[in-house]
Amino acid sequence: MHTFSELSQQFEAQLHERALFSGNPDTLYEPCRYLLGLGGKRVRPVLCLMAAELFAPLGADAWHAATGIELFHNFTLVHDDIMDRAPLRRGQPTIHARNGLTAGILSGDLLCIAAYQEFAQLKHHLGAVLQVFNQAAIEVCEGQQLDMDFEKGAIPEVDQYIHMITLKTSVLLAASLKTGAIIGGATPGNAEKLYQFGKNLGIAFQLQDDYLDAFGDPKLLGKQAGGDILADKKTYLYLKALEQLPEESKPKLLALHKSESTDKVERTLELFQSCGADVACREAVEQYSNKAFESLEDLAVLSGRKQGLKALAEQLLNRKS
Amino acid sequence: MHTFSELSQQFEAQLHERALFSGNPDTLYEPCRYLLGLGGKRVRPVLCLMAAELFAPLGADAWHAATGIELFHNFTLVHDDIMDRAPLRRGQPTIHARNGLTAGILSGDLLCIAAYQEFAQLKHHLGAVLQVFNQAAIEVCEGQQLDMDFEKGAIPEVDQYIHMITLKTSVLLAASLKTGAIIGGATPGNAEKLYQFGKNLGIAFQLQDDYLDAFGDPKLLGKQAGGDILADKKTYLYLKALEQLPEESKPKLLALHKSESTDKVERTLELFQSCGADVACREAVEQYSNKAFESLEDLAVLSGRKQGLKALAEQLLNRKS
Repeated sequence: MHTFSELSQQFEAQLHERALFSGNPDTLYEPCRYLLGLGGKRVRPVLCLMAAELFAPLGADAWHAATGIELFHNFTLVHDDIMDRAPLRRGQPTIHARNGLTAGILSGDLLCIAAYQEFAQLKHHLGAVLQVFNQAAIEVCEGQQLDMDFEKGAIPEVDQYIHMITLKTSVLLAASLKTGAIIGGATPGNAEKLYQFGKNLGIAFQLQDDYLDAFGDPKLLGKQAGGDILADKKTYLYLKALEQLPEESKPKLLALHKSESTDKVERTLELFQSCGADVACREAVEQYSNKAFESLEDLAVLSGRKQGLKALAEQLLNRKS
Repeated sequence: MHTFSELSQQFEAQLHERALFSGNPDTLYEPCRYLLGLGGKRVRPVLCLMAAELFAPLGADAWHAATGIELFHNFTLVHDDIMDRAPLRRGQPTIHARNGLTAGILSGDLLCIAAYQEFAQLKHHLGAVLQVFNQAAIEVCEGQQLDMDFEKGAIPEVDQYIHMITLKTSVLLAASLKTGAIIGGATPGNAEKLYQFGKNLGIAFQLQDDYLDAFGDPKLLGKQAGGDILADKKTYLYLKALEQLPEESKPKLLALHKSESTDKVERTLELFQSCGADVACREAVEQYSNKAFESLEDLAVLSGRKQGLKALAEQLLNRKS
């Protein structure tokens, strides 16, 4: 059994060693190397490896699946950055900003296909893994489209927002764990428990992200609070406030959205607090966290073996318990 | 054994019957239905089915693979249309022109993943099929990037051009046949022969396309000749002429490129003919056609069973023999 940081380092090392994306033309492959070289915590592949190691020592299949998941995640980053017109990713220029739209689209496509190339090398459970992964991959596309639709269209309900973040970010975390479990030889029941753990952990993490962006300690965040408000994002807090504010106060919140007023953040935060949207958000984080930990509890493996995943979840959710 | 047109109709019917892409949100799925509904000859899936039927009666695996190949092909069409800024596809608005860039990128991504979802349903030979298909998929990306690089950059050599069209269009035809062969239970030798047949047929077809666009009978083409010249495409004829023209004539051809001169087509065609680029192109078509027919000849199945593929190739290459 290895810790998250051990597996993260090992994953980084094997990625470096394999020197993927060395083909031609370089105009296609270099952007892929560039993006993978920007690093990151490699949460998804490590979740896959940790889940696999719950049930069996790590073999080639687990590493291929973990790599496939990371390549797929990077594919979504490239294409999402185009759709979001994002100039930066991890503090560096995005591929489309650096290499143009064609390279952005095609390098993304290549990363997606390369992900499947990793899966195709599985010696066991290929069909089962592809079923889980394909389902998640499709849901990620659905989530991204919903996010885009929400950005430019009608205001979603809170439940629709949670459905969107579930598809856009949580199902891939969930599928990473389930894929690892299948490769490790888990029973269907245990594989599903890990899926639920990942799904609820992902939702809790995203909702906490919404909360901290508004109410977090700037010193701990490393940035000024209120970024989502300034960017007019339709977060959990915003949508919950629109549900809970008294009718006469809703126009105030709606008027602040897309306004250039200098006290926009301050006044928005006041409205969030006045109707208890902040409390509701903390409660939702708690609720989804509890679901995640319950699934982990229910997992039929020795509790000592679960410590790594439990510690990781606590760290991600910044829980002291 | 079925003919091309029988299988094309059956493929169309099963595609219609399966009612794929009925998920949510509709902003993601509707463009996929729209594109698939635009029709087409379905050459790639039918090649897969014809190859499979050479060796065994068609079963569910063959239909899933054929569908996967068609979905993948449509994925490349959507993304290529974005990169080419093409307003029309089969006479109708392209997805990005009709639904915007986000829908274009995401619907393309979904079609690609849906292709893998079809493959994942194979009961036999999944690993082998994925190896063949992934390799082709990656090469298609490489070919598209090369095409884009050639469009805006240095003038490629004729060999580089043939390499590009091989990757961009021929390998998917080749892989369609090889995939069908594997599913039908062909020996590795026969599967490879079919791959070579498809690859060379694809190259011959593309070169013939270059030739006919310049020298074809407008009545038979259904359009005015010289479209590639007016669009300043770097075709086989153009690149071959730049190799074969005497040094003093090359500047004339280069000057016509991107010029607005009213006799541009006429003068370019004269230059092509003056150096024998037209003859070289016909010879190249002949050479690759012969290679294709030789591979088909070498295929170790009863010659009566090969008639369908032979007839199709003759029809595509418009050969009377």
